Amino acid sequence: MRVEIWSDIACPWCYVGKARFEKGLEAFAHRSDVEVVHRSFELDPGRAKGDVVPVVELLAEKYGRTREQAQAMEETVAGNAHAEGLGYRVEGRDNGSTFDIHRVLHLAKAHGVQSELLDLAYRANFAEETSVFDDEVLVGLAVRAGLDEAETRAVLADPAAYAEEVRADEREAAELGANGVPFFVLDRRYGISGGQPAEVFTQALEQAWKDRAPLTTLASADSADGATCDVDGNCA
Amino acid sequence: MRVEIWSDIACPWCYVGKARFEKGLEAFAHRSDVEVVHRSFELDPGRAKGDVVPVVELLAEKYGRTREQAQAMEETVAGNAHAEGLGYRVEGRDNGSTFDIHRVLHLAKAHGVQSELLDLAYRANFAEETSVFDDEVLVGLAVRAGLDEAETRAVLADPAAYAEEVRADEREAAELGANGVPFFVLDRRYGISGGQPAEVFTQALEQAWKDRAPLTTLASADSADGATCDVDGNCA
Repeated sequence: MRVEIWSDIACPWCYVGKARFEKGLEAFAHRSDVEVVHRSFELDPGRAKGDVVPVVELLAEKYGRTREQAQAMEETVAGNAHAEGLGYRVEGRDNGSTFDIHRVLHLAKAHGVQSELLDLAYRANFAEETSVFDDEVLVGLAVRAGLDEAETRAVLADPAAYAEEVRADEREAAELGANGVPFFVLDRRYGISGGQPAEVFTQALEQAWKDRAPLTTLASADSADGATCDVDGNCA
Repeated sequence: MRVEIWSDIACPWCYVGKARFEKGLEAFAHRSDVEVVHRSFELDPGRAKGDVVPVVELLAEKYGRTREQAQAMEETVAGNAHAEGLGYRVEGRDNGSTFDIHRVLHLAKAHGVQSELLDLAYRANFAEETSVFDDEVLVGLAVRAGLDEAETRAVLADPAAYAEEVRADEREAAELGANGVPFFVLDRRYGISGGQPAEVFTQALEQAWKDRAPLTTLASADSADGATCDVDGNCA
């Protein structure tokens, strides 16, 4: 079974939702048969690289609240994060374009360390005193996740590298009807929107497992001129 | 859309089928939205490592034919390979356990070079004067595909490395009803058995694309306590 998770590094519910999903997956009997793929989604696709603003100020302006009210909104999210054992800084966090982070996450995917880099980037963004919108910080995280420093720098220096992969993920999200993240898709059959409680994910995994449908055969080796070799080594 | 291809390096129709599928994919309008994953299947899972025999002798014994008749069988496969522009040696090829090759193909998958290594291994096995059942040859192919030599040797030296990944692929093949390879699965909805002509693959891709079903929502952010952030950066 395959689970695809659309998320953005700037999305607090994605950070919390990843931990909740992983807890839900841990309680699923067939967890070793589940493959997890992370996909790109930008909360603010129009934001220019380098346009970095403090989160609390952004929230206050976006929702027309005072600085204190914006901070209280962040406290609510922090409470949810803490309940999952995750760190969360209410003040001093930055917000900016996540496009380059998604490009490097695709490089990490190609090297099998996507989930590792995502965890490091979430932690840096939400729990630590580091800005993931700084290329040097991002390179450091990539190296800690197991990527090659020179290769990471080459991807960051070439705006086209993995750009189409990010765009393709975002097109797919729209086609699947996702207008917010985190968005979880099980075997391209079931959708779950939001950082739900762990039990919701366990139940969804159980239902998707139970409902796995038999394949529809479009062409078989018996028909036409397609040939196979079977498990006894016999080739038709 | 995702296409999974179960195959074995010792399976001539898998070698031919990969080329035909890729030709079929090339003619598919949405090819850039197709992700291809190769999965493990052993034609002879009981064969011990090091038990390597010439293919023509194996065929003669298995089917109770003379050496000349076995060679004629191979000529038929060679004709199909040549028609796809692929080399194929009728004589001098070996057959052996492919388990370790599958383990290294999983290492290659983790590094994003699975299709490259599969192509090199197919070519070595079917078209060149090299035996892929020799660990030194396999290491050489892995390095040419872009893998690290020391990491490849470490995988070969540890029989547990990626063994569960190979077994999991094989269990999935059985669950999906595949008793021969190549076996192609489109979005876990459609199955195609055998190295079909390229047009069959193009048509199947078109049908699978047209029939993509909407997701069934198991939990939405509006319900329960799952929260999301949307594309305007608003977090519920």
